[in-house]
Formats: sequence, C-alpha cells, structure tokens
Amino acid sequence: MISMQPIGYVRSPYTSTQEVPRGLGAKHETEGALEIAPEFELGLTDIEGFSHLFVIWAFDRSGPCQLLGTPPTDNRPHGVFATRSPFRPNPIGLTVVSLLRREGARLHVRGVDMLDGTPILDIKPYLSNVPQEQLRRGWLAEAETRTKS
Amino acid sequence: MISMQPIGYVRSPYTSTQEVPRGLGAKHETEGALEIAPEFELGLTDIEGFSHLFVIWAFDRSGPCQLLGTPPTDNRPHGVFATRSPFRPNPIGLTVVSLLRREGARLHVRGVDMLDGTPILDIKPYLSNVPQEQLRRGWLAEAETRTKS
Repeated sequence: MISMQPIGYVRSPYTSTQEVPRGLGAKHETEGALEIAPEFELGLTDIEGFSHLFVIWAFDRSGPCQLLGTPPTDNRPHGVFATRSPFRPNPIGLTVVSLLRREGARLHVRGVDMLDGTPILDIKPYLSNVPQEQLRRGWLAEAETRTKS
Repeated sequence: MISMQPIGYVRSPYTSTQEVPRGLGAKHETEGALEIAPEFELGLTDIEGFSHLFVIWAFDRSGPCQLLGTPPTDNRPHGVFATRSPFRPNPIGLTVVSLLRREGARLHVRGVDMLDGTPILDIKPYLSNVPQEQLRRGWLAEAETRTKS
C-alpha cells in the first residue's frame, strides 16, 4: 500500500456531483482555486510561467470501484480505465486547468470540475500536446458521432 | 491519509534512473508494457480505441521531497510543482503513452519513462489537447531559448 497526504484543497463552486457539467459537449470553464498548504508554498516557485497545469486529486466522496460502467457521455458500458468514472480502484482524479494567476499559496484557475474541498495530491506543469493528427478517442468519438446523426 | 494499491506494474527496459533519457530534447519513444493485475482486466474494456493514455504511477525508488530543485533541463532551481522531479510530497508520476496494442491484461505502449517494475496506480484515456496557441511553458521554454542562443 502507498499512502498519500493532501498538499491542499480545491475551492470550487460545486458542492455536489450533480452540479458538475458532464456528458458530451460539457464545457469546463468554471473558475476556482487551488489552496496549497503553507508548508508546500515554496514548491510553487516559477509555476506562474505555465499556462496550464495537471491537477492530481482524490475522489473523497465517491463509491466503491466499478470495473464496468456507463458514463454520462454514452448509453453503453465501458471499462473504468477507458473513462473518467469516479468509481476507480484508486480514487485518483486528473484535471487540466488553466492558471489565471498566483496569489501566494493560492492558484486561481479555470476549468475546475472537482467539488469544493477536494483534496489535492499533486500539481505538475502541462508541457506538451499529443500531435493532433495522432489522437484517437475510441468510444467517445463514436458516441459523439451517434449523437450527431 | 489516503491509501493506494498498485493495479499493476510497468515493464520497461530501464532499471536505473540514469538510463532514462532526460533533459531538453529528450525523446520518449521507448516501448514497454503495462501489466495490469488479472482482477482489474475487466476495467480495460474498450481501451483499445484510444491512441494515448495517461498513466498515473508511483515513484517507488525516489528520495525525500525537495520543494526546490534544479531539473536536468536547466541550471536554475524551480519549485517541485513546476517540474516533473521525482522528489515530490506525494510520490506520483504521470506519463502520457501511446497505446500500440492490447493483449488481455497487458497493454503494449510507446513512451515509457518509468523504471521496470514501477507500480501503476491508474490509467485514464487521453481525450483532448490544450489549444496549442494558448500553451505557455514558463522556465522550460526559457531554458530552451538559452540553450539555442
């Protein structure tokens, strides 16, 4: 077993999962903050130069793991590792946010899809994109096509 | 504290960190495999449709946290959350790999930068890029410019 401790908490307007936009075409433009604990503030040095960040966080209000589940973006079941389902073997969430500004140990960001008070486990700089012409999005692209037709 | 268990292990040609390409211009084209434990195989259903995956893994052979450190890509120190340093408050690694093929519970991938035997915590589909014109890469872009000039 590997033990993790929160390095801070998400401030978000969402207090229940029902409020978080989901499904095809959901926009993630919501502003919020990453409040990092004072003892880790030094680790934010030079983060201001990055436009986007990976936030790795913990689903602290999800249920037991479901290896197969039907996501809000489709009416067919898919494996948990092929979806962003919260019902995972390890309760790890990953969100790309854009960094608006830093205020000490508080990062103001756009693109939060976490609930208020969500524990943050790590932050990493977003460094590069996958070449767009190489990107395939499996069942999600198929579900989008079915919805449009 | 939040406890995590490995869902599987990375198979990689690298057995020590000195072998992993690092620094500016490092290419991550190395092939390897993600060996998922049989009890989680059902969770891989439909993963074949995705060209790229996020692999969230544990640094199981790193040292204590260093909030400020000088990465191999620069000669100046930066905060740990602005780098991919292994010396993090929580020992979480994140790698984007391309999925070559699936063989049961074994995913053959390109782009491994983990050591052989690294514990895998989660796998998620890579769904979209940040708009390239919005991407800024802070000290890393500056270090690249200094190297070129």
